[in-house]
Amino acid sequence: MLHKADNRPIGVFDSGLGGLTVVAALSRLLPDEDIVYLGDTARVPYGDKSVDSIRSFALQDAEFLFSRGVKMIVVACNTVSSVAMKTLHQNYPDAHILGVLDAGIRAAVRTGLKKITVLGTRATINSDAYRRGIHAVDPSIIVESIACPLLVPMAEEGIVDNELACAVLDIYLKQVKADPPDAVLLGCTHYPLFQKALNRYFENGVRIIDSATACADYVSDFISANALSATPGKGAKNSFFVTDMHSEFSVHAARFLSRPPERVQKIVLTED
Amino acid sequence: MLHKADNRPIGVFDSGLGGLTVVAALSRLLPDEDIVYLGDTARVPYGDKSVDSIRSFALQDAEFLFSRGVKMIVVACNTVSSVAMKTLHQNYPDAHILGVLDAGIRAAVRTGLKKITVLGTRATINSDAYRRGIHAVDPSIIVESIACPLLVPMAEEGIVDNELACAVLDIYLKQVKADPPDAVLLGCTHYPLFQKALNRYFENGVRIIDSATACADYVSDFISANALSATPGKGAKNSFFVTDMHSEFSVHAARFLSRPPERVQKIVLTED
Repeated sequence: MLHKADNRPIGVFDSGLGGLTVVAALSRLLPDEDIVYLGDTARVPYGDKSVDSIRSFALQDAEFLFSRGVKMIVVACNTVSSVAMKTLHQNYPDAHILGVLDAGIRAAVRTGLKKITVLGTRATINSDAYRRGIHAVDPSIIVESIACPLLVPMAEEGIVDNELACAVLDIYLKQVKADPPDAVLLGCTHYPLFQKALNRYFENGVRIIDSATACADYVSDFISANALSATPGKGAKNSFFVTDMHSEFSVHAARFLSRPPERVQKIVLTED
Repeated sequence: MLHKADNRPIGVFDSGLGGLTVVAALSRLLPDEDIVYLGDTARVPYGDKSVDSIRSFALQDAEFLFSRGVKMIVVACNTVSSVAMKTLHQNYPDAHILGVLDAGIRAAVRTGLKKITVLGTRATINSDAYRRGIHAVDPSIIVESIACPLLVPMAEEGIVDNELACAVLDIYLKQVKADPPDAVLLGCTHYPLFQKALNRYFENGVRIIDSATACADYVSDFISANALSATPGKGAKNSFFVTDMHSEFSVHAARFLSRPPERVQKIVLTED
């Protein structure tokens, strides 16, 4: 069966710039899909805000992306994915909205591995959403969850692969290393930056599941299954929106995106 | 000369809860002064936002406090003190607005010590405001400035006096310890929580100047000199406003205030 191509962009949002790791993975996997990214950098981080505020911010983020004519929204923010997906689905019952959390859960279960350690921000780990999601599919998987609140500021600072990074990883993971799992699920879009350090820390003995890459796989399968693919070979045109642009924006953005972002605009989000 | 007492409250604002260390110091020193505190917890931290955004946030914060009838405003946020004091004074030319940065500079110079290391957030250190302020009074003082971006998230997490706290301090201060200064100026309202760890780190050989205590001294002198003191012995009634209240708000607030905050209300700030 032949489908008409859908060349509307994919919308991706995150509280800040961490979600650019998802954009980087999407661009690699789906080079013909236009992407509109929104980073709510004026209010980043969401992880230590209240659930009510996070839900309200998420609705504003989604509203902005839909106003840009996106065909679907990828919630590249684990905090929003953990506490606000229901709110988003209730407010946009007919829209395609996928969350990085479901993608991570799917990838973790698909490994077939039986002992998984989830790393995330305090909000994500407190929500227990990864463990609940994994156990909803396979209750026999042993899931351990560890909040690593310092990893986001460290990633933002580029402290990801030096003596200090290793000292902090060791504080959070000492117990885990003593009795290692089969896989570590990176339940935060900032954490792929620690992949190298984690592989070294676990002496390559543990599978690292990166939720950003998992998210791109999930989106790719979803657009194929729902006839949402763009015209093959057309190439992609991306745009980036942020609610604040600090002096080191370009350096930080390039760190997560693995290239400088194009067409960056600052916008103001407001409550309805 | 006898002055009429001025029982209007003192307004204090910060990007988040760190400024509560200033409120704690003010309450100890000025037990009869009512305080209205505003923490912009929906947008915390300010330190990695753009200068334009910080100025806009600061004006919204000040507007809210003046709407509560305060007799003066204490800017308990080093980031705002470093980049937005001029904006505030221009917008409120007749108001009394004091910043924690000027207080810290005054305290540092008054020690008479000649070699001072300033610790602060990246935004504060990049602004070079402490060094410029100290040198405006005494250019012979040797000032070294060190950005310690991980200390704020660590203080928020209560990681202030353990193995990890010491490891992080050592990364930032190793060079300083090798050739120690006479004094370390804590140029961030979160940093008083590291006082114990710092004293141990420097084996009590370095004077620690706490900008929160310095700020309370500064305000105390200012209200005496300007006949703004409240009725002696009347006692104080404080109120606390925040723009977001997360689940661990009370725990975090008590950590900075050294007691649970009274009369806490959540408000919404908007651009004019």
